[in-house]
Amino acid sequence: MSDNNVFAVIPQCLDQELVEILVENKEVCIERIVSKGHTSPASGWYDQAKNEWVIVLKGEAIISFENESEIRLRAGSYINIAAHKKHRVSWTDPDLETIWLAVHYS
Amino acid sequence: MSDNNVFAVIPQCLDQELVEILVENKEVCIERIVSKGHTSPASGWYDQAKNEWVIVLKGEAIISFENESEIRLRAGSYINIAAHKKHRVSWTDPDLETIWLAVHYS
Repeated sequence: MSDNNVFAVIPQCLDQELVEILVENKEVCIERIVSKGHTSPASGWYDQAKNEWVIVLKGEAIISFENESEIRLRAGSYINIAAHKKHRVSWTDPDLETIWLAVHYS
Repeated sequence: MSDNNVFAVIPQCLDQELVEILVENKEVCIERIVSKGHTSPASGWYDQAKNEWVIVLKGEAIISFENESEIRLRAGSYINIAAHKKHRVSWTDPDLETIWLAVHYS
């Protein structure tokens, strides 16, 4: 067996946010996300059918919640976002890659 | 909302491995584990009913598989361990805390 590393292989060209699915089945989806200045589309909120547990492993980001204050996430910061809790990524560090792990679950 | 951090609040006394459940429902369990020289009980293998996706976020560890070579995990290394795949943690760094995230899922 060989291992993989979440910090490895960051493409130079990050025109779009990079989303890599590490595990996926009916119940759970684990994603590695690499952002660099990317934010959620300005048009609206994420309103997800599943719960999402998300952690920033490197870099920095701000998540905003509808009618609530924003939260700044640094390396190691994690939060649990309940299904249908409206949120958006309002900022990620434009100068450094921000690496996230997200676990979507029922 | 406030955030939590996987790198924060490591107790000085780690006589036993520290396991903190971050998310738990019928389908998924997300754990933060802090090891310091701890290994699986020598008596046998883990033989788990659920799949486990696990990542080392800090420190270093070796996982051994029945009839297979071992794998060394460093910061950022992750592996997926299928249900009933027999394995054990044969080594963790005795001098530094090793911080893991484990996602158990059906």
